[in-house]
Amino acid sequence: MKYESTAREGDLIQLVGLTHKHFIFILKSGEEFHSHRGIVKHDDLIGKTWGEQVFSHTNAPFFILQPSLADILNDIPRSTQILYPKDIGYIIIQMDITPGKKVMEAGTGSGSMTTALATAVGETGKVISYEQKLDFQNLAKKNLERLGLASRVDFKLRDIAEGFDETDADAFFLDVQNPHDYIEQVRNALKPGGFFCTLVPTFNQVEKMLSALRKTQFAFVEVCELLLRHYKTNPSRIRPADRMVAHTGFLIFARKMIPSTDPRGETLAKEVIGIEDEI
Amino acid sequence: MKYESTAREGDLIQLVGLTHKHFIFILKSGEEFHSHRGIVKHDDLIGKTWGEQVFSHTNAPFFILQPSLADILNDIPRSTQILYPKDIGYIIIQMDITPGKKVMEAGTGSGSMTTALATAVGETGKVISYEQKLDFQNLAKKNLERLGLASRVDFKLRDIAEGFDETDADAFFLDVQNPHDYIEQVRNALKPGGFFCTLVPTFNQVEKMLSALRKTQFAFVEVCELLLRHYKTNPSRIRPADRMVAHTGFLIFARKMIPSTDPRGETLAKEVIGIEDEI
Amino acid sequence: MKYESTAREGDLIQLVGLTHKHFIFILKSGEEFHSHRGIVKHDDLIGKTWGEQVFSHTNAPFFILQPSLADILNDIPRSTQILYPKDIGYIIIQMDITPGKKVMEAGTGSGSMTTALATAVGETGKVISYEQKLDFQNLAKKNLERLGLASRVDFKLRDIAEGFDETDADAFFLDVQNPHDYIEQVRNALKPGGFFCTLVPTFNQVEKMLSALRKTQFAFVEVCELLLRHYKTNPSRIRPADRMVAHTGFLIFARKMIPSTDPRGETLAKEVIGIEDEI
Amino acid sequence: MKYESTAREGDLIQLVGLTHKHFIFILKSGEEFHSHRGIVKHDDLIGKTWGEQVFSHTNAPFFILQPSLADILNDIPRSTQILYPKDIGYIIIQMDITPGKKVMEAGTGSGSMTTALATAVGETGKVISYEQKLDFQNLAKKNLERLGLASRVDFKLRDIAEGFDETDADAFFLDVQNPHDYIEQVRNALKPGGFFCTLVPTFNQVEKMLSALRKTQFAFVEVCELLLRHYKTNPSRIRPADRMVAHTGFLIFARKMIPSTDPRGETLAKEVIGIEDEI
Repeated sequence: MKYESTAREGDLIQLVGLTHKHFIFILKSGEEFHSHRGIVKHDDLIGKTWGEQVFSHTNAPFFILQPSLADILNDIPRSTQILYPKDIGYIIIQMDITPGKKVMEAGTGSGSMTTALATAVGETGKVISYEQKLDFQNLAKKNLERLGLASRVDFKLRDIAEGFDETDADAFFLDVQNPHDYIEQVRNALKPGGFFCTLVPTFNQVEKMLSALRKTQFAFVEVCELLLRHYKTNPSRIRPADRMVAHTGFLIFARKMIPSTDPRGETLAKEVIGIEDEI
Repeated sequence: MKYESTAREGDLIQLVGLTHKHFIFILKSGEEFHSHRGIVKHDDLIGKTWGEQVFSHTNAPFFILQPSLADILNDIPRSTQILYPKDIGYIIIQMDITPGKKVMEAGTGSGSMTTALATAVGETGKVISYEQKLDFQNLAKKNLERLGLASRVDFKLRDIAEGFDETDADAFFLDVQNPHDYIEQVRNALKPGGFFCTLVPTFNQVEKMLSALRKTQFAFVEVCELLLRHYKTNPSRIRPADRMVAHTGFLIFARKMIPSTDPRGETLAKEVIGIEDEI
Repeated sequence: MKYESTAREGDLIQLVGLTHKHFIFILKSGEEFHSHRGIVKHDDLIGKTWGEQVFSHTNAPFFILQPSLADILNDIPRSTQILYPKDIGYIIIQMDITPGKKVMEAGTGSGSMTTALATAVGETGKVISYEQKLDFQNLAKKNLERLGLASRVDFKLRDIAEGFDETDADAFFLDVQNPHDYIEQVRNALKPGGFFCTLVPTFNQVEKMLSALRKTQFAFVEVCELLLRHYKTNPSRIRPADRMVAHTGFLIFARKMIPSTDPRGETLAKEVIGIEDEI
Repeated sequence: MKYESTAREGDLIQLVGLTHKHFIFILKSGEEFHSHRGIVKHDDLIGKTWGEQVFSHTNAPFFILQPSLADILNDIPRSTQILYPKDIGYIIIQMDITPGKKVMEAGTGSGSMTTALATAVGETGKVISYEQKLDFQNLAKKNLERLGLASRVDFKLRDIAEGFDETDADAFFLDVQNPHDYIEQVRNALKPGGFFCTLVPTFNQVEKMLSALRKTQFAFVEVCELLLRHYKTNPSRIRPADRMVAHTGFLIFARKMIPSTDPRGETLAKEVIGIEDEI
């Protein structure tokens, strides 16, 4: 990625208005951006310096910026549960999603996590994403194509109860309705020591998942949640925002272990599972 | 990175004992791992399947695993403030640190953030890391070399009050004592629209930084903090952990904007800065 | 307060509709309760058992209940900053507001805290409440009279910069615009060892108050905040509510100390102030 | 309670040392206070002004203060689960524990909640406290007698599965091992519209309690938790404390409703229960 200080034809750009409303789209010569604050011609945006102000035909000001991954994720057309940047960032670092990795997910949904995973594994990595519903898969494909990330992803249409084709994934992110029903299939798709993560909104699901993990030779189980608190930014009146998102989901992490046949290891499974009991 | 299911000579591995104590080191034929739970020969580890149990000469069991980036970050020998995976993951996603990017940081410290940035930018990206103290730089170099990431980093020794050599960084992470004193220098190092982030522990520092950002044509300022809450994992007694880390630091994000010379844009700066006021 | 299982003329009651909207009023024979869900005659409510269902002339159901102090506080007609039950409950227990105590506050505002204090000190206690604006005082008086608590309160109209008449208050709750400007006056109103509390929304105010307390022989200073997290109550889908109130204010507690004239005590003030530094 | 500015024989006092360690005891002429920081004679404390410094025979300084209810609760000799002031304050305000009320609890435990309830109901109120174990009851009695509150409490020894003698309690606080097993008995002890509260540490218990409340004509069910965050008090380095108590328990509130025999009310129970579903 060569550094360019100006917006060019084909770039994914973000216009931000004074009310901080964001519009993300691709620059195409000849096209127009329309909003209730007026029209901006793409040709007037091409060549602008990033961070500059531009004006609509009604003189409404906008900033032109390259969107971040977080901006893009917040903007993805979706028909499923939202994944928040705070959770995605932590999942990626905890599951060690780095350039070159082979990562799986189910289900694809609208492709938010697919986007984040495909970005993190880079051109040398691969994401295999399973989905049961064709319309979700099509939506996700479209979202990923717009971002130039589709070539890094194998989209597969499948009822995952039937299992997965792969057996050597570095990491697996499971985001389906009843994740505890598919833990055996996920285990088979992971390489030894591989990383597992799921995100569930309720405690009843946490309970079912923890029971399923205990029965399936996963260990180093970690259950946590992230709370993101914003602060108002007036330097003479610094204070937390009045309201906040109080819950997105509980994150459950685990690693695939190999059962021991050594008599010295017999009692291990019981002890190592539930690692967070003694925090 | 080709998939291997077994540990090989030269791999960075992690041994985890029953008390969940972690030991991270590189496998070298002929060497020995020593702990108060006994000795394990590296030659007995080479060839083991990831996730398997191994035993010391006193029969103490250990699991052999590939460490994740989060594991590595928690293990880095440090002499400075700790950066937590929860914060690092969010910074990376908010600042759009993706493969191929050119990213700067100051100071290097023991190299925690350097490691995370160098991992995220991949082989096609570049990290430029400034530090004033030679011993910190040497420690960080050693840490990055162990991880095979040193080639992605330019280490520079400098009092950053003198400014930076670069003028086209995609993103800049500032982690020094008085970050508000260097905001002008950081602005000059960033490309237009570039991402800025700093992490400060106190509210007094947040106040100073917010004032500095207002004077230096940064906008879309965001102040936030992440709270990570762990849960105990016994499925029949699920509950939050009794104690938690209550504070690591306040994250401040902003983007470098270009001052408008257009009369229609004159009053903008005041309004766009302090974006979180109306959350 | 004798136990009665039924609503009687003169009782303060609460009608709760299916959407959980609350209406708090006093039962008066001959009057009518009007809402967009229909009319209920007070005479039809008198004699009803608490917790029973009643119906409007349009057959809309309501529950009849005695309101709790928390219900009443949430319902008080107000024109000032809201005090939340979570904060009020903690203030009362931390400042030791118990039956028989003599407690002061400034300003009165709409009388929320006055109500809580007057309830807690009982018939044998006394609340002295200062306010600068007549219309606030009148509103608060009306609110307290409705609840039968006015006789426990001395309402005083005053610019508190002039100081207070009292010198022996057990506790003082200061809830004014710039509380750090009146800390000397508050100190003079408190008995030795007396409890002080203020609630401020911003960090800039916390900073000013901490500086003021250090100069004024207060000690055992404690700064904290309470976060109240609600959970959804469907037993098969237990989860935190999606959004929450993220900030009401920072609570600052301190106690009035007596400066030592003993040479052995000279250096004490510095050390004892800032007690939470070592938490 | 008449105002006294000095400590007198028979007063419950608190000595606070420089390390902020608290000692709470009753002043008795002729006795001595011993700590590792030296000896203080009670006769040297009698007559001291509250908030003053006193010195041990080794010249170690202490502050003499009247303990608050919160101080006393933190100091109660206990052999059971801890109740925290943050939770107690909120329970008291949500359950409307005010002077003159008749309040029940089970079990008594070491008497922490008994102390808070007996304080809040005043001399005109009454607390009835059930406990199954004689040694707990004796410990609680001793704790309450020391505080001069025992006359406000009826201590009863009973396996509460057998039910309670009372049928007209204003409020009931249930703090036993399996609270969901006794919800029918508690309902019978409450007056119509009466307040119920329990505190449970795990989500599995929340689930069982919510199911039990649905079957037993309780409504306006509220599940919540309070998080108390402390801040360091140095005005030039204000920041949250590094670590905090992350969990004490989940509070469950409900009110006893009267089942409707009116056909218009038939479908009500389902809707009104689970009130927090739509927060």
